[in-house]
Amino acid sequence: MTCWLNGAFREEADAINVADRGLLLGDGVFETVLLADGVPAFWDAHMARLGDALAALSILARPEDIALETVKELAARCGVSKGAAVLRITVTRGAGARGLAPPPALAPTVLMTAQSYAPPPDVPVKLIVSKYRRSASSLSSAYKTTNYLDNIMARHEAGEAGADDAVMLNESGRAACASAANIFVLTDDGSIVTPPVAEGALPGVVRKLLLEQGADAFNIREDTLVPSALRGRPVFLTNSLMGVRPAHLDGDGALQRASEGGLLSALRTWYKEKLEQDIEERARLF
Amino acid sequence: MTCWLNGAFREEADAINVADRGLLLGDGVFETVLLADGVPAFWDAHMARLGDALAALSILARPEDIALETVKELAARCGVSKGAAVLRITVTRGAGARGLAPPPALAPTVLMTAQSYAPPPDVPVKLIVSKYRRSASSLSSAYKTTNYLDNIMARHEAGEAGADDAVMLNESGRAACASAANIFVLTDDGSIVTPPVAEGALPGVVRKLLLEQGADAFNIREDTLVPSALRGRPVFLTNSLMGVRPAHLDGDGALQRASEGGLLSALRTWYKEKLEQDIEERARLF
Repeated sequence: MTCWLNGAFREEADAINVADRGLLLGDGVFETVLLADGVPAFWDAHMARLGDALAALSILARPEDIALETVKELAARCGVSKGAAVLRITVTRGAGARGLAPPPALAPTVLMTAQSYAPPPDVPVKLIVSKYRRSASSLSSAYKTTNYLDNIMARHEAGEAGADDAVMLNESGRAACASAANIFVLTDDGSIVTPPVAEGALPGVVRKLLLEQGADAFNIREDTLVPSALRGRPVFLTNSLMGVRPAHLDGDGALQRASEGGLLSALRTWYKEKLEQDIEERARLF
Repeated sequence: MTCWLNGAFREEADAINVADRGLLLGDGVFETVLLADGVPAFWDAHMARLGDALAALSILARPEDIALETVKELAARCGVSKGAAVLRITVTRGAGARGLAPPPALAPTVLMTAQSYAPPPDVPVKLIVSKYRRSASSLSSAYKTTNYLDNIMARHEAGEAGADDAVMLNESGRAACASAANIFVLTDDGSIVTPPVAEGALPGVVRKLLLEQGADAFNIREDTLVPSALRGRPVFLTNSLMGVRPAHLDGDGALQRASEGGLLSALRTWYKEKLEQDIEERARLF
């Protein structure tokens, strides 16, 4: 497996130090970026979020150290310069002495991998409500950290129940997000609602785009969301890989009304244009 | 750095796969075990807790696959067959395909390292109350998972404030534990109280011993603990490395009364005897 690790391309898969704090303590953050013909989508937004996380955790890496030239070459070496691919950037505090206390001047581990991405079939995601909670007060809700175990088990629970994904509730019992996606619901009054970050929603890149640039056109707003507000309503999920994807609670499969389908369809078209526009602009800088 | 990884001793530090889910997603658990002259303390309790965690997370490793002979040889290869050392056993779900969903038949990663352990100076631990919360509903409260980022930042916060460690409160604002230790307080009525696991306390090995074998002699019980109940009271912390260690909230340094010091001293002597007895019995099986 070709990867880029701490400044150099590596061909061997076994390359991470056994003392890496990312492995031992979950002391790290990451970004998952869609590549289109090797060009990263919404690069600035991903790097801004990564920068926020690194600063919050006092990890001594800077997004500026990750060069677009490197991403381009990694895509080429991984054979994904054409088509859709996923770039994963993982930054940990590094390999250091034992113990929780973060060593002050540790050299971080910066790992990038790229592999082809086949979008899932374009059918609505079937959701359960997970028994695993998401803590709105955890750093792992505000930042994209590598502490994903509760989410993993929520996804596992969904699979065991014959569903595709799980809605995770926060400690107050309100909806926060899906296991690896933000959640939006089309409400009765015609607005589209998604939980605030303070409720445990990860500040997703697509979520941010919708809230900042699509709010007026599509009447999108942040609000708390009790799980019953999802029942019988059209729902959609967003993340950087799948973009905007229709969803519904298990049992609500037949609910999509033509008008709502029309709204969601218009939103997806709008998103696709934003995505293509961003990639086109980025490609010119390559 | 000598380690034992997936069935073999390795001399090189860079040995973990870049696709390991422990590194990428925090999809793993661990144990930290005190070694005395290479002999692991409270081995059965550690293996029972590890087994519980692996079963809860459906990670396909079994504690029985970790042989005491291997621990003994690792200690020898790491030069810690004499004196105090720390054995760390990390088990992740393994290196697998991208995505949250746990691949059903993934070979786990089992890593063991050993290094010498110098106990900290025997002075009381100075505690702050952290702004970082511990989610009692998270799997990472019930099991010793590798998702330690909130705890790391709580410890960091303590260091920045000139303290040694931090008390983490749960989502209800009650005390759960310190960043890597259970917490006990000597109450006004002479009993010793520690928060239940349901409050976010990790089921620590020393905690379990105290509750199961020391409860009668020392009047130890589980109860919820508001942070103000720690103020002005003698506190102690427990974990497998430091055993039973006196502590106090920052500002309460002068509070230890002779009688309470006597109780804590008696408890520490009792614990030391239990520890030595366990190691002696284990050594005979080696």
